[in-house]
Amino acid sequence: MTRVLGIDPGLTRCGFGVVDVASDRSARLVAVGVIRTDAELPVERRLLAVADGLDALFTAHSPDQAAVERVFAQHNVRTVMGTAQAAGLALERAARRGIPVGMHTPSEVKAAVTGYGNADKRQVTAMVTRILGLEESPRPADAADALALALCHAWRAPADGRSGGSAHSSLTPALRVWQEAERHARRART
Amino acid sequence: MTRVLGIDPGLTRCGFGVVDVASDRSARLVAVGVIRTDAELPVERRLLAVADGLDALFTAHSPDQAAVERVFAQHNVRTVMGTAQAAGLALERAARRGIPVGMHTPSEVKAAVTGYGNADKRQVTAMVTRILGLEESPRPADAADALALALCHAWRAPADGRSGGSAHSSLTPALRVWQEAERHARRART
Repeated sequence: MTRVLGIDPGLTRCGFGVVDVASDRSARLVAVGVIRTDAELPVERRLLAVADGLDALFTAHSPDQAAVERVFAQHNVRTVMGTAQAAGLALERAARRGIPVGMHTPSEVKAAVTGYGNADKRQVTAMVTRILGLEESPRPADAADALALALCHAWRAPADGRSGGSAHSSLTPALRVWQEAERHARRART
Repeated sequence: MTRVLGIDPGLTRCGFGVVDVASDRSARLVAVGVIRTDAELPVERRLLAVADGLDALFTAHSPDQAAVERVFAQHNVRTVMGTAQAAGLALERAARRGIPVGMHTPSEVKAAVTGYGNADKRQVTAMVTRILGLEESPRPADAADALALALCHAWRAPADGRSGGSAHSSLTPALRVWQEAERHARRART
């Protein structure tokens, strides 16, 4: 079993999700939530709050691996700077604790969880809810994204952290769940 | 007297400069250098090395204030992400130690040190060398930039850290040194 901490970095809302993933790729929810910081505070105080929140998560859940969403600079410049800074803190914290950490793009995460890279937030949330067998969808969306990221990382980099896994095999658990859902829907209609 | 640590953030080269600035705005060099990280290492290891280097600087020099160059996303995306991450670590480290930290743009730094915002690196280095009364120019350029940043911060935010100082008054020390240099050059010619 591998415990993965997924981090969707941000200064206003930093989403996190912790999952336990078994060798058969089934997954269980451990924790999910959002670290929030006050937009009125100076940026250095906000970064300190994010770092403290991350430290508390690493200490409370002792993840075997961590995953951070890869940030791109193509969107709003001001937002991206804060996101990159929060991501940097997450990467540094993982390295300091000797925890292997990977980065995945939003497309990779969507493809791993829903089977296609252009899925919208609603579809990602629905699949994460299904995969983890939750009765309610995790909220807010940043938290569901962090869970999807943790699942993506676990499926792409198995427990030994070395075998990697091809893009094809990374889709297997999501497609399996999806096919089961399709079968279930067909049964419901007939 | 105020001791300022200036940080020119970067993942490959993170420049730093420490200066003591007196109430008459004269300045003395305390330390200057560059934290380098191996481009072959994964980004989380590089961020860890930068963070360790920054921690060592804060501990060794006990600055009263810190200054970090403000990063913009207009240049190379890949470089900017690493720069923003290193800047985030510097801001978080200062906040954790309760040290007031400011950010200044490259134009503000150039204007404070040379008297105009479009000065080139050579001019900034020459003025820093002159202001600090050094026999040789600090090298590499990242290190001279960090010293210029520390001087800019000290002159803009005096020892009490509250009075701020207008753009006009922030130019005074640089212009004074410049005028002295001009007078010296005229005497040498006559």
